[in-house]
Amino acid sequence: MTTKEWNQLRKMLPQWVEESRRHCFDGKVASYIPELSKAPIEALGIHILDGRGNAVSAGDCGLSFTMQSISKVFTLILALIDNGEEAVFSKVGMEPTGDNFNSMLKLELVQPGIPFNPLINAGAIAISSLIAGESSLDKSARVLRFFQLLAGNDSLDYDYDVYRSESETANLNRSMGYLLKDNGVLEGDVEDVLDVYFRHCSISVTCSDLAKMALVLASNGKDPLSGKQLIPRRYVQIAKTFMTTCGMYNASGEFAIQVGLPAKSGVSGGILTMLPGRYGIGLVGPSLNRKGNSIAGVELLQKLSQQLDWSLF
Amino acid sequence: MTTKEWNQLRKMLPQWVEESRRHCFDGKVASYIPELSKAPIEALGIHILDGRGNAVSAGDCGLSFTMQSISKVFTLILALIDNGEEAVFSKVGMEPTGDNFNSMLKLELVQPGIPFNPLINAGAIAISSLIAGESSLDKSARVLRFFQLLAGNDSLDYDYDVYRSESETANLNRSMGYLLKDNGVLEGDVEDVLDVYFRHCSISVTCSDLAKMALVLASNGKDPLSGKQLIPRRYVQIAKTFMTTCGMYNASGEFAIQVGLPAKSGVSGGILTMLPGRYGIGLVGPSLNRKGNSIAGVELLQKLSQQLDWSLF
Amino acid sequence: MTTKEWNQLRKMLPQWVEESRRHCFDGKVASYIPELSKAPIEALGIHILDGRGNAVSAGDCGLSFTMQSISKVFTLILALIDNGEEAVFSKVGMEPTGDNFNSMLKLELVQPGIPFNPLINAGAIAISSLIAGESSLDKSARVLRFFQLLAGNDSLDYDYDVYRSESETANLNRSMGYLLKDNGVLEGDVEDVLDVYFRHCSISVTCSDLAKMALVLASNGKDPLSGKQLIPRRYVQIAKTFMTTCGMYNASGEFAIQVGLPAKSGVSGGILTMLPGRYGIGLVGPSLNRKGNSIAGVELLQKLSQQLDWSLF
Amino acid sequence: MTTKEWNQLRKMLPQWVEESRRHCFDGKVASYIPELSKAPIEALGIHILDGRGNAVSAGDCGLSFTMQSISKVFTLILALIDNGEEAVFSKVGMEPTGDNFNSMLKLELVQPGIPFNPLINAGAIAISSLIAGESSLDKSARVLRFFQLLAGNDSLDYDYDVYRSESETANLNRSMGYLLKDNGVLEGDVEDVLDVYFRHCSISVTCSDLAKMALVLASNGKDPLSGKQLIPRRYVQIAKTFMTTCGMYNASGEFAIQVGLPAKSGVSGGILTMLPGRYGIGLVGPSLNRKGNSIAGVELLQKLSQQLDWSLF
Repeated sequence: MTTKEWNQLRKMLPQWVEESRRHCFDGKVASYIPELSKAPIEALGIHILDGRGNAVSAGDCGLSFTMQSISKVFTLILALIDNGEEAVFSKVGMEPTGDNFNSMLKLELVQPGIPFNPLINAGAIAISSLIAGESSLDKSARVLRFFQLLAGNDSLDYDYDVYRSESETANLNRSMGYLLKDNGVLEGDVEDVLDVYFRHCSISVTCSDLAKMALVLASNGKDPLSGKQLIPRRYVQIAKTFMTTCGMYNASGEFAIQVGLPAKSGVSGGILTMLPGRYGIGLVGPSLNRKGNSIAGVELLQKLSQQLDWSLF
Repeated sequence: MTTKEWNQLRKMLPQWVEESRRHCFDGKVASYIPELSKAPIEALGIHILDGRGNAVSAGDCGLSFTMQSISKVFTLILALIDNGEEAVFSKVGMEPTGDNFNSMLKLELVQPGIPFNPLINAGAIAISSLIAGESSLDKSARVLRFFQLLAGNDSLDYDYDVYRSESETANLNRSMGYLLKDNGVLEGDVEDVLDVYFRHCSISVTCSDLAKMALVLASNGKDPLSGKQLIPRRYVQIAKTFMTTCGMYNASGEFAIQVGLPAKSGVSGGILTMLPGRYGIGLVGPSLNRKGNSIAGVELLQKLSQQLDWSLF
Repeated sequence: MTTKEWNQLRKMLPQWVEESRRHCFDGKVASYIPELSKAPIEALGIHILDGRGNAVSAGDCGLSFTMQSISKVFTLILALIDNGEEAVFSKVGMEPTGDNFNSMLKLELVQPGIPFNPLINAGAIAISSLIAGESSLDKSARVLRFFQLLAGNDSLDYDYDVYRSESETANLNRSMGYLLKDNGVLEGDVEDVLDVYFRHCSISVTCSDLAKMALVLASNGKDPLSGKQLIPRRYVQIAKTFMTTCGMYNASGEFAIQVGLPAKSGVSGGILTMLPGRYGIGLVGPSLNRKGNSIAGVELLQKLSQQLDWSLF
Repeated sequence: MTTKEWNQLRKMLPQWVEESRRHCFDGKVASYIPELSKAPIEALGIHILDGRGNAVSAGDCGLSFTMQSISKVFTLILALIDNGEEAVFSKVGMEPTGDNFNSMLKLELVQPGIPFNPLINAGAIAISSLIAGESSLDKSARVLRFFQLLAGNDSLDYDYDVYRSESETANLNRSMGYLLKDNGVLEGDVEDVLDVYFRHCSISVTCSDLAKMALVLASNGKDPLSGKQLIPRRYVQIAKTFMTTCGMYNASGEFAIQVGLPAKSGVSGGILTMLPGRYGIGLVGPSLNRKGNSIAGVELLQKLSQQLDWSLF
């Protein structure tokens, strides 16, 4: 971290947030999970954390929101820890799809019908089935504790209203679950697997929690403050690679060109991203663009990347 | 019915059955419902019934088998009786798909995501949800009574082993059910709708039962023996048209060219067909060709159509 | 032919045409071939011919128009005459597709990549390559003479403006031609094959010509006036079957339910249909519905079929 | 560059090449362009170049081969120089497809029918049409000179046998060209555009040429020896990002996980890759894996990345 860059961030971030916020009204808050539609369309907040514990934030940082698809990065890591690379990649592939995150086309068209990657819905459902645990509640508890550990926040918990709303209306995810079962990808009861999935999507966080989790990834799995290795480095590498190739739904290619950072978005409007070796970043902006990513959030990250020359490429 | 043709049928049918039976070993008995795989691969039987009650049969006519997809013709008719054309065709289309009978591609690719026709699995599941009744058991009871009425056989009943086997392993149909729910095609509980579907697929019949049901269609909805109009003529017309364009899965086009009769097949190896105005025909041959139709049965019908000039076209 | 029906036709046809004509403004004249867009949107005409040479017509029967896809039925027949069933069906299949008439999806997705049937564009291009002849001009000359023979009209000729317009703008058909070449379906030069195709689509006819050609099909290949067998009966059967299952693009299933006659439409607004054993029918109405069929023409045929109980089913 | 790593490379590279070479017989030399099938199946060579002009190489480095898809990276860059980002990205997208490199599915299924990215065949054909020049020969001459400049090799030229072989047999690319024309992506004559494409695919190189071109990219567009900025840095960034997300056909995701370097492969067995800021790398191994990448080449790069910790992630 250069002091100069940090000073520029402190000075400019509020202005860049306000400039990006204008784009909120060009997008829409997600409505397919009824409970999500209550989020404020004009909100935008960001929290940036460095390895010495310094933070800079701007905008609506107090907002709580559910992790949704952002959680997929960390269940992937936990499944890797529980099962190893070989077992995990016998159930999900490593390729971007070019399709919507909830598409089932390739599960029917491309043999052997395993999800193309762990960050699309079908892949994340398959990953949920790989979490170790005696029961679905036990698996969910392990996921929650792992997330608490990474965020350094023991009070992380589910948003039960979102969880119930998602569980009740998620017929497309149920359809995917049964197709995966038919394709031999899922073991066990489909509803049990889906319950693990719905729960980890419903974990409620703030930008600061996301920034903390991102910082662990940016630090190759080590908590830079405690110095503890929380995740094996190779699994962080796998996670960061997937975030780069598949993290922003089927706008991942464009995000790589325009921003160039590993990132993962969720339909609640959250984005977790990082500058490897330097910062962990958490962001929220519930108004989404056509591809399902925070419209103002993507705008803001593009501005940051261009102003501060952050692209990995 | 010409006496000459009837005499030829009586004389030649056993020989034609034996010639066609040789093809059994080029096919396979269905195995995706475990209970179905127990059927005898070399069996072939046919029963032909005319409007005065004369019958000719040959081969393994004593064999009982489940209706499977053949039942879809009659649940369509019952749904039409219960709801009328407009309501039914707001939930299913009228077009062949060119895809496998259990494909979900067009449910995702073609807006508004309703099944292309009532004879593919997705369409028949949608039709099951349209059967009138207080509960799924009530609906199933109405279906069974309707089938008993058409077959003139009050002892028609489910094969409970097949029903259970199908219900336990039908994850692809479950996947379709939830996708239809998500697409707004199904009302009510998906498992309830599927139960109606699994039950009507599991109704056990013989060739003679199918011939009786076919004869009602061949007679424009009237029972030729009692003179009673069991089905409105327009609904028979709709059913016969679908049997011609979509009745033999994605080999319907070829069957129309090579045989030229309205027909519906099932994965148990049954085929219900007819010579409109003349005969009802029931057939069984559990060994299936690549497209899921009775391999020897299609061969036999082709021989009959060519020898006796039966094509409608 | 019952005198009663004929009298009803004479009396009612003008009124039915006028009632159906109202739908013209709900559709659109084809514009993808620029020259076609000049057709009058409000036109509707029909010509019905029986086996003794009696005719009844109404509406804009004087209108000349190009055969477009209607020609595919007769090039299929000529290819069958030239090559036999086995050779023809090694290059095209027998199944409806469920896709648009100009879709290439199944050529890529379904092995071995041959067109599903001879009435979609890809199939008709494959058929064009099977017409016997020393050169593409020679093949085209044979097609034209065959059409003249069936229409009993030696002055049938190309509309050269449409031919040129089609040839210049048909990049999608060119794309299909080269894909078929790559899939091993086409022999010879792609542009030569396409020239045969563009020419037979551009043959100019009136409703009366279509009715005459249809009457030959309705009479199982015999010219009912001269008594000459112009087409082997089996090939007429094949053609009529395809017209029933695939003749009205991806609205063929609905047309079979609502009208129930073998028919073939073209984007110029023409429809050739027939009442087998009785009438040949030619119709034109350039305003098309969403599926590419004459919007008023389909309306008129539905009225005729329902009023006069014409469905084959 | 650490001296230690360079010494390790010098010492180990021959052994790593030999270990990787064993995989050659598990793959196949490309045969769809007949001329390519003449390449030696067991060949494997690599050339690594640093910014001070030091080189280390091993295996069959003398082999000449055509650039094939590797050329797409540099025509993209030239099109960006000629037209700017906005014009280029109005004709091609930025997303991986998940499909084969020669698939046309998304051109039909996803509106507005522009290629998903510039590194699949359809995208590269679209890019060919954007190269500035009076005629197709003029455009091709500009491409060749640009490649000569980057490789620092004025004698770079076409392999005319491959060019002719490709031009004569490339019906699938022709099909794509006409579909792109129909979709409004291509201006001008399709055959002219394809000629530019076939020519740049046929430029003959050695591993040393590729390493030189790669080094310019690794140096953010600057020739490290002369100090001249040959490509604007932003266009290098765009190229490197596409190489990371889409450079290895539909195995790009796996390559990113297992190797983690920007790379582009060709069906001749060539791979151009780099360690940003450090090395340019050229490699050839004509035996291809199932996804169309050099089977031994991918093996070798995986070994290098794991041994020397080269992943960007």
